[in-house]
Amino acid sequence: MKLTQQQIDDFNREGWVWREKSGAPRTAFAAHLYNEAFGLLGAHPRMIDPVEQIFGEKVYMHQYKINAKSAFTGDVWQWHQDYGTWKRDDGMPQPRAMNIAIFLDEVMPINGPLMLVPKSQHAGDLKASHDLATTSYPLWTLDEETVTQLVEQGGIVAPTGKAGGMLMFHGNLVHGSAGNITPYPRKIVYLTLNAVSNYIRKPTRPEYIAHRDFTPIQTVDDDALLRLARAHRQAAE
Amino acid sequence: MKLTQQQIDDFNREGWVWREKSGAPRTAFAAHLYNEAFGLLGAHPRMIDPVEQIFGEKVYMHQYKINAKSAFTGDVWQWHQDYGTWKRDDGMPQPRAMNIAIFLDEVMPINGPLMLVPKSQHAGDLKASHDLATTSYPLWTLDEETVTQLVEQGGIVAPTGKAGGMLMFHGNLVHGSAGNITPYPRKIVYLTLNAVSNYIRKPTRPEYIAHRDFTPIQTVDDDALLRLARAHRQAAE
Repeated sequence: MKLTQQQIDDFNREGWVWREKSGAPRTAFAAHLYNEAFGLLGAHPRMIDPVEQIFGEKVYMHQYKINAKSAFTGDVWQWHQDYGTWKRDDGMPQPRAMNIAIFLDEVMPINGPLMLVPKSQHAGDLKASHDLATTSYPLWTLDEETVTQLVEQGGIVAPTGKAGGMLMFHGNLVHGSAGNITPYPRKIVYLTLNAVSNYIRKPTRPEYIAHRDFTPIQTVDDDALLRLARAHRQAAE
Repeated sequence: MKLTQQQIDDFNREGWVWREKSGAPRTAFAAHLYNEAFGLLGAHPRMIDPVEQIFGEKVYMHQYKINAKSAFTGDVWQWHQDYGTWKRDDGMPQPRAMNIAIFLDEVMPINGPLMLVPKSQHAGDLKASHDLATTSYPLWTLDEETVTQLVEQGGIVAPTGKAGGMLMFHGNLVHGSAGNITPYPRKIVYLTLNAVSNYIRKPTRPEYIAHRDFTPIQTVDDDALLRLARAHRQAAE
């Protein structure tokens, strides 16, 4: 998976890449809308089916992002709950949306893995402050006292794994990640799948961040990505 | 081990604590000179004897520091070799000084452990730039290309362990550490032991950072710290 120059130009023109303070790419949005492979990934039954199973209804794509956590310069994500932002900024009624993380690189303990506070989703929607200072990206973050208390109860886990690994987590699960100073990038695709009945009511963020197309996702065949890769390989031969 | 208010006031007055940009303590210097327990630790045979064994001569204390890597706010140490600074800033002739790290807290993969690049000490004294920007502490740091190359050859290890754990590493070993966003502080004491014949020739840093007392360390008894702790306990009863 390499972006073409055209796609990189699009990114730069449309502003769909949020950059770190250093200038390094931080987050690329909505890649499922202009890239076939990312589109198939966002409709893949291995990601969609389990979430529909949990919510008991169809889901649509609320947000689609690639978080780079670049080598050497990948910056912190402060402790937060995703639903805190979906509620406050997008007017999402309930935490009936779910993140699916797919590792594009190997996630190691040393390259800024996602850190999760188990059981913290039971704490509900916690008080948060809009952090516009510590990183380049605005985020509703939790205070140190709250995090300390939740970690005392639940600890911290930092799931690692090879490229291709997948992780689902609740919209109210407290999580964050430290900076990455290693030469190992740590790219993760996040699908945010929202129950269709839970569509957002008062969006304030741009449409390329918080989507307004509430159409239920129709899954593709399980081998759709393999077939695309094979077709590309044949075309290149 | 708790500092008294008097000691905290001393720190604040004398400026022996280097602070993070956030204001949190980053590094406390020369604690062996005003605290009995840290003094005994700096003359403990389990730290001193192995280094004398490697250098084949007596050693003195070139630097004594406690790096806090505070909970939530502990900042990055960029990739560097310690000897780079000892040579450029202190006029140390050879890399015949050694760091002994003693963990005061549990060092975990998630709270900003020291990351070491194995075998990088064989690369000798590498080209470095004086980084005065990325953190609050001036440091001679390595560029990304150099680090990438060394990591390709040697990988990265991040030793972890309970409080009381100890780690020795070569003055030219490339190392760094990411920030700590967890509620777990990661305090480490570093003794920098220099071979007496390798005393520093052109010090430019303050004496509380780069010591000018080249007297060989006389080790204390192996149970000296235990006895001190026992005496304190009895005095408190």
